[in-house]
Amino acid sequence: MSSEGISNNERAPLGASLPWTQVLANLKFNDDGLIPAIAQQHDSGEVLMMAWMNRAALEETLATGRVCYWSRSRGTLWRKGEASGQVQRLKEARLDCDGDTLLLLVDQTGPACHTGRKSCFYNAIRGDRVEVVAEPLVDPDILYGR
Amino acid sequence: MSSEGISNNERAPLGASLPWTQVLANLKFNDDGLIPAIAQQHDSGEVLMMAWMNRAALEETLATGRVCYWSRSRGTLWRKGEASGQVQRLKEARLDCDGDTLLLLVDQTGPACHTGRKSCFYNAIRGDRVEVVAEPLVDPDILYGR
Repeated sequence: MSSEGISNNERAPLGASLPWTQVLANLKFNDDGLIPAIAQQHDSGEVLMMAWMNRAALEETLATGRVCYWSRSRGTLWRKGEASGQVQRLKEARLDCDGDTLLLLVDQTGPACHTGRKSCFYNAIRGDRVEVVAEPLVDPDILYGR
Repeated sequence: MSSEGISNNERAPLGASLPWTQVLANLKFNDDGLIPAIAQQHDSGEVLMMAWMNRAALEETLATGRVCYWSRSRGTLWRKGEASGQVQRLKEARLDCDGDTLLLLVDQTGPACHTGRKSCFYNAIRGDRVEVVAEPLVDPDILYGR
C-alpha cells in the first residue's frame, strides 16, 4: 500500500479525512483494472449483490449517483437497471481498510437479481444441500420483457 | 455456468435444494482458485469485510463452523482470529445466483478489522474527501500484543 493511500486513515480519529483524488490515485485495482463492489440496501442492511467496477465506472457512479459497474462478460460499462429498469441509487460509497474493496450503500428499485429476487444471495448451504431461501419479487420474464 | 451448478436453482421454488457436492463441483473459483467471501454480522447486518477462500478454506469453514480464508499476501490458510483472537463463527453461508461469490453470515467476536474497528468499511467517500466514520473498539496494539 502506498503511503499516500487510504492506509493513512488507519489510525486517524473519527471525522478525519483525506482528499478523494489522492485516495483514488492509490486504489488497488486488480490486474484487470477492476475492484470488487458490494451493494447493500442502505436501510434494511440486506446484501444485494457483488459486482466489479473499473475506474470509469466508479467515477461515473460518484458523479451521477446512479450505480454503474463493469460487466466482465460483456466488456462494457453496465448501468445497473439499463435492461430491467431496476436501478441502484447510491447513498454512500465506502472503502475498506486496505483500499481494495468498495461497499456501496444503495437504494435498490425492485429486485437486484436477474432472477427477480431482491438479493442475489438466495442459495443457503445447509448441511449437504443448497436451499433456495428467497422468492422472486417479480417474474424475470416480465422484468426483461421476454 | 455448467448446467449442473447453482444456476439450476434460478427458477426453483422456495425450499427447493441441490446437493452441495454437485454445487461445489461447479463453483466458479477464479484463475487463482479463489472465490470472494463477504462477511456480514448475522444480527446487525453490518458488512464486516471481504476476503478470499480457496476450496480448502471453504470446506474447512463449513466443517468446523469457524471461518477460514485464504491469505493472498501470506499464501496460507488464514483462520480468522488466529493472531488477534477475534474469530468469526459461521451462522450460514450463502451463494449468489451465478455461483461466483459467497456471503457469510457470521458472529464476529470483537472487531473484524485489523485496525480495531468492527468493520473494515470505515472510509466514506463524501464529496471530495474520504472520511473516517467509525472508531476502534480496541486499540490494535493491544489486539496484536505489540
